[in-house]
Amino acid sequence: MDIREFVEQSIGHWRSQRSAHHLAFGHFEAVQSEIDITSLSIDAPEVIELCQTYNIDPQTAVLPFRMSWEGQSDWEDSEAVKGNCVLIPVPDLEQPNRGKLLRERGYAEEMAAVGEYYFTDDGTFVLTTSYDRAAAEEKIWFVNPNVRCRVSLIKTSAGTGVVTASFSSEIRQTSKS
Amino acid sequence: MDIREFVEQSIGHWRSQRSAHHLAFGHFEAVQSEIDITSLSIDAPEVIELCQTYNIDPQTAVLPFRMSWEGQSDWEDSEAVKGNCVLIPVPDLEQPNRGKLLRERGYAEEMAAVGEYYFTDDGTFVLTTSYDRAAAEEKIWFVNPNVRCRVSLIKTSAGTGVVTASFSSEIRQTSKS
Repeated sequence: MDIREFVEQSIGHWRSQRSAHHLAFGHFEAVQSEIDITSLSIDAPEVIELCQTYNIDPQTAVLPFRMSWEGQSDWEDSEAVKGNCVLIPVPDLEQPNRGKLLRERGYAEEMAAVGEYYFTDDGTFVLTTSYDRAAAEEKIWFVNPNVRCRVSLIKTSAGTGVVTASFSSEIRQTSKS
Repeated sequence: MDIREFVEQSIGHWRSQRSAHHLAFGHFEAVQSEIDITSLSIDAPEVIELCQTYNIDPQTAVLPFRMSWEGQSDWEDSEAVKGNCVLIPVPDLEQPNRGKLLRERGYAEEMAAVGEYYFTDDGTFVLTTSYDRAAAEEKIWFVNPNVRCRVSLIKTSAGTGVVTASFSSEIRQTSKS
């Protein structure tokens, strides 16, 4: 598995079930959402702009994409969870199973962020991102071409304590409803 | 990571939050439980008996252990979930990061089962077990010495469709309450 194959397999419309475990309190949160992953051109204005923020030559990027999601949490008074984000993989030239991932919006915090990814020998995409006050570690793998699993951990910025652990199972929807 | 280190790190008393996603229906189930993992002697009667079932020389086993759990599901009318199981790792003599895991009771089905495990290059324990009517794939990894994550998938026996995907976050309890 390399980043090109991984992004190509990810393009599409997905139905997601996500469970978040808030570890300190033993709380569960359940979120149902729809996710769209669409490819972007290497010369799209939002791609060029995000590359400039990090001083990256857009020509070194591979398959930038946009992820959009819309969902509903079971937490009281929760509003619809909705958003979208531009993501740009920039593979390492010397180690093709590693690279950077630029994101327009962070996972742990709202600001733009750059994470480091690599693929394990069983094809799992592992992404670590450091933020001001937190660090995120995500693992994403395909069980088959139409089922993806994702585990996301939010840690304290020192990286030792785990604050939230969440798990998504994502099923490809063959026709968009 | 090898099986000896993995089992040694696992010994202890854990508080577990588990979310199961029943994919066909989009259902969520939340389970809170306490898990005890205790080591067993290589010559304990239950270890010898399970080895005999699979025609395995107990001398080739490494750190057999018993896992006990007691918990509560949020499903209506659910009874307390309680059980225990003897597990026996039998490493491959030639490939130390692989082996078999004998279990007294299966995960997908109640009968005894033998699974195949290996460790990925990032220290994740991956176990696949085939049953009569189902197959299970489990991934377990340590985020730090006191936090374990576990993803368990139950598939149709052909191994293509995913029926249930569940995620546990497990936190070591330093004193047993």
